[in-house]
Amino acid sequence: MELFPIGLVESELKDRDGAPKQGDEGAPDAWLHFTDAVVEGLEGIAVGDELLILTWLDRAARDVLRVVPRNDVTRGEQGVFNTRSPDRPNPIGLHRVTVLEVAEARLRVRNLEALDGTPIVDVKPLLRSIEER
Amino acid sequence: MELFPIGLVESELKDRDGAPKQGDEGAPDAWLHFTDAVVEGLEGIAVGDELLILTWLDRAARDVLRVVPRNDVTRGEQGVFNTRSPDRPNPIGLHRVTVLEVAEARLRVRNLEALDGTPIVDVKPLLRSIEER
Repeated sequence: MELFPIGLVESELKDRDGAPKQGDEGAPDAWLHFTDAVVEGLEGIAVGDELLILTWLDRAARDVLRVVPRNDVTRGEQGVFNTRSPDRPNPIGLHRVTVLEVAEARLRVRNLEALDGTPIVDVKPLLRSIEER
Repeated sequence: MELFPIGLVESELKDRDGAPKQGDEGAPDAWLHFTDAVVEGLEGIAVGDELLILTWLDRAARDVLRVVPRNDVTRGEQGVFNTRSPDRPNPIGLHRVTVLEVAEARLRVRNLEALDGTPIVDVKPLLRSIEER
């Protein structure tokens, strides 16, 4: 079960300390750069589309099973699968974005909380009947 | 970027020919079996919770960049990243489910379109502010 990067995030967010927890908490717009090998797979994606971006959170810890979400001690420790912590056994990030610009092998997207240089592993259209039902 | 299975799907769906395309299209309820190594990460998950299950679609083709979604010739070919086809460079499945039962290292969930034996790679809580905004 080996993933390979289909692209990389270009963002002004350089480290976890300065990054918002979720895209709707003040995350900046970002560029997604795709490899030549997969660019054909982007056909049909247009400005205004809502996408789910799956990333490999390469700066996360994989040996964490319990966390205190958002360091909120009133919530106490939770199993990581009950949180969106980047630290988890398989550190796959899931980010909802809106497409702002399509430029050949690049997409400009709104409000992405992923860090600069984060590998992209998949892109899926948001399904309103599923993710918003 | 190596994933490892945190669990397996147990389902009456045995092959792709008989499987619905999405969970809300008649998919059966299923059991998720987790490994002892990660079971601690499930703490806090309760009946009624809505989760996103990430799977490794082990029967998918990885060399596909263009597909005809749902074999609908009127739509024509699309880049795979503009579809939810299981065939894609990194075949990660994303499934929204509701928890029906919690039994130690197992979760019973509603309407899962993943096939029997599919490896589970991550579980995340649905964030209504993100996936449903």
